[in-house]
Amino acid sequence: MAKDKKLVESITSMQEDFAQWYTDVVKKAELIDYSSVKGCMIIKPAGYALWENIQHELDRRFKETGVQNVYMPMFIPESLLNKEKDHVEGFAPEVAWVTHGGQNQLQERLCVRPTSETLFCDFYKNDVQSYRDLPKVYNQWCSVVRWEKETRPFLRSREFLWQEGHTAHATAEEAQERTEQMLNVYADFCEQVLAVPVIRGRKTEKEKFAGAEATYTIEALMHDGKALQSGTSHNFGDGFAKAFGIQYTDPNNQLQYVHQTSWGLSTRIIGAIIMVHGDDSGLVLPPKIAPTQVMIIPIQQQKEGVLEKAGELCEALKGTFRVKVDDSEKSPGWKFSEQEMRGIPVRIEIGPKDIEKGQCVFVRRDTREKYQVAFEEAAGKMAELLDTIQSDMFERAKAHRDSHVSDAHNYDEFKSILEEKPGFIRGMWCGEQSCEDKIKEETAATSRCMPYEQEQISDVCVCCGKPAKKLVFWGKAY
Amino acid sequence: MAKDKKLVESITSMQEDFAQWYTDVVKKAELIDYSSVKGCMIIKPAGYALWENIQHELDRRFKETGVQNVYMPMFIPESLLNKEKDHVEGFAPEVAWVTHGGQNQLQERLCVRPTSETLFCDFYKNDVQSYRDLPKVYNQWCSVVRWEKETRPFLRSREFLWQEGHTAHATAEEAQERTEQMLNVYADFCEQVLAVPVIRGRKTEKEKFAGAEATYTIEALMHDGKALQSGTSHNFGDGFAKAFGIQYTDPNNQLQYVHQTSWGLSTRIIGAIIMVHGDDSGLVLPPKIAPTQVMIIPIQQQKEGVLEKAGELCEALKGTFRVKVDDSEKSPGWKFSEQEMRGIPVRIEIGPKDIEKGQCVFVRRDTREKYQVAFEEAAGKMAELLDTIQSDMFERAKAHRDSHVSDAHNYDEFKSILEEKPGFIRGMWCGEQSCEDKIKEETAATSRCMPYEQEQISDVCVCCGKPAKKLVFWGKAY
Repeated sequence: MAKDKKLVESITSMQEDFAQWYTDVVKKAELIDYSSVKGCMIIKPAGYALWENIQHELDRRFKETGVQNVYMPMFIPESLLNKEKDHVEGFAPEVAWVTHGGQNQLQERLCVRPTSETLFCDFYKNDVQSYRDLPKVYNQWCSVVRWEKETRPFLRSREFLWQEGHTAHATAEEAQERTEQMLNVYADFCEQVLAVPVIRGRKTEKEKFAGAEATYTIEALMHDGKALQSGTSHNFGDGFAKAFGIQYTDPNNQLQYVHQTSWGLSTRIIGAIIMVHGDDSGLVLPPKIAPTQVMIIPIQQQKEGVLEKAGELCEALKGTFRVKVDDSEKSPGWKFSEQEMRGIPVRIEIGPKDIEKGQCVFVRRDTREKYQVAFEEAAGKMAELLDTIQSDMFERAKAHRDSHVSDAHNYDEFKSILEEKPGFIRGMWCGEQSCEDKIKEETAATSRCMPYEQEQISDVCVCCGKPAKKLVFWGKAY
Repeated sequence: MAKDKKLVESITSMQEDFAQWYTDVVKKAELIDYSSVKGCMIIKPAGYALWENIQHELDRRFKETGVQNVYMPMFIPESLLNKEKDHVEGFAPEVAWVTHGGQNQLQERLCVRPTSETLFCDFYKNDVQSYRDLPKVYNQWCSVVRWEKETRPFLRSREFLWQEGHTAHATAEEAQERTEQMLNVYADFCEQVLAVPVIRGRKTEKEKFAGAEATYTIEALMHDGKALQSGTSHNFGDGFAKAFGIQYTDPNNQLQYVHQTSWGLSTRIIGAIIMVHGDDSGLVLPPKIAPTQVMIIPIQQQKEGVLEKAGELCEALKGTFRVKVDDSEKSPGWKFSEQEMRGIPVRIEIGPKDIEKGQCVFVRRDTREKYQVAFEEAAGKMAELLDTIQSDMFERAKAHRDSHVSDAHNYDEFKSILEEKPGFIRGMWCGEQSCEDKIKEETAATSRCMPYEQEQISDVCVCCGKPAKKLVFWGKAY
């Protein structure tokens, strides 16, 4: 029992130390463990089950838009990585290099993919010949490696899991449409399934993906007021196509370059789920993504009929919900703590007195509200309650986010907001990278995105005071 | 249209050159493409969709037995790989080594996992403390790397996709039970879903997995009479536990070593599907695994009502079957060839004359038999037909396999069977590795397995004539 005790006692409060709270939650909720490989994490069953649900839901949404899954090699020959100038500059400093196969040194070293644009381009170069071969709308689920110096579970690790979509189109318009379409798939998924509200926008030139013409992003706000880039979608125009020579013959028999996009979402998003919804008792999972939605916890389970009734209830709910009974030998109190730590959206308490009255007790994880429910109404009430929790969680996260968006009209205001009220700052921008650089250096805040919904909140740049061009969401970020 | 023509014309017949036929099929059925990374393949949508169906079906069967999915790092520090002597000897010669991260040389080089026993052991060492923590029944879906010299799509490539299960148990009995249980999961999956009959048995000491106490295998017979090891399950006893120090306290508070197993099935199995069922027109996919089960091909689709009726039929079947309409501009003949090349189990031909008669024509891919079916009976007949195809394919493969199992009673007989009638040879064995070595050197045949169903077909070893201990299935293998 020593282990359970520690589970409950040792979580740091968010208020006291948010970073430590985060680390405690990922460990105590058994999402990950550290490994002997520096900077790489072990994703444990509770963490991987979350990722499986994310995959399942996203993959379905992808396929509805015509995406096909493929698998590319995990290695990229150095010469291939070097083909697109901006791309290699962005990624080469942080790749892992394979130099030997067995006993032999390789003729050309290979990097472990940090992302696979170059591999897809190399493939499309041969696979795309005619306009009839277009569009190509491919995606892969895989792991990638980036040799980061500072790592944190889910947020930044040397290896992480993700999906990367790579498409090739006949026209610039079609590529732009696909870029935006996939950003919207991500945004809808985050809001509808993960209950995480996001800001949709475009990255500045400074912040865009290495080799992209334009990068679009969804940005979420964590509980500590820091932003998390939660998914990105890139339009490459014909830049990669020209670097790799990806051409097709159009209906008039003319050679044309393809237009390409890529888009990715990673296990990082699990960090968002934790930091948007979690509390001082641990994880709080939205019902739609929770691997276990309902935990039935028998009270005085040694008494006749209690475990049987818990089992019956489980059977009755099983067809519709992801439900389990915790019939282990721990005390109900410990079981409650564990269920809370793991973020299971609802627990059902059921003991001899409840059984006498023909009822059980539903307890919401997010608000801890309790409801007495007659057995015969359990399934119907549970469906309602899970829906309510899902939408309440979104509304609560949105209210928190909205209350942490502040407008800054000049640089002093900008800096004092950053200190006093962490969150997104809306501020106008002149369009010069020098202002982004200055803000980053002096305040550690970065331009998160130029939101789709533009507004002119001031005529001058929040940093330099010159005429403003764009509204930007600024913030400190993970 | 030049592409389609080539598709149909250029496939080599199995009789003429089986290896070339195989290569033609994987390319023309668009399962894979070669990549710029030597020895690594690109799995294209048709190939990956097969793997997704395999994953889906196996994963469900795993979870029914209590398996939980996790994800371990893709890198193994050299010191960790070195911990179990037999294991490192088996794998070190064929691993890829990462020596640099970004610009910096690593303090310790890392290999890209060829298999993950060492990582799981390193994890279990800390995660398992008490008998209450057991069993651990974990699995991961991932890619692994083995630096092979000769490669062939699916059968042997430097990187391949697989699942690897790794379990830890309190007792030797439980580990043995799990080892056999998972082999049976593989065997049932192959036979029931892939329609590939397999021989279940145990590997000899020479052929067992590096570091295992015992390896169990399922062996399938390809159309050319060569065997393919299609899935393996290993019992490690407490060997790895001792090398890594994985101990738990039992209910009497005594320290005990855990007993471990691992089991894996890879994209290699797609090679078995191709080589067991394929024919000179291309792939033949069992209905249960086919990404598309039914292709509707309109005849004279330019005529009024044809495409509409094809669409209606598709709608009517869609809820129950994986069905598509090929309404491209190619001729029906080319469409038939493509559907055959891709191994789609049934095509439905539907033209103006059929529509007049209120019917369509079902054509089986495996036998090419045709059936006229009234529209209103299409769904019911299709369900029947797909069931029939599935079981006929299994029976046909089994009849082929059984007719290619020969008994050899002495070495001359053994050698002449190998030359005249490729397939499995049943022959008794004395138990000495020297006989296995001799047979391999002189005939290229290897011991495939000691089948579960033992029989004493002779009293002496088929090689040396000394007293026989075991019945062995021998054969040339991929």
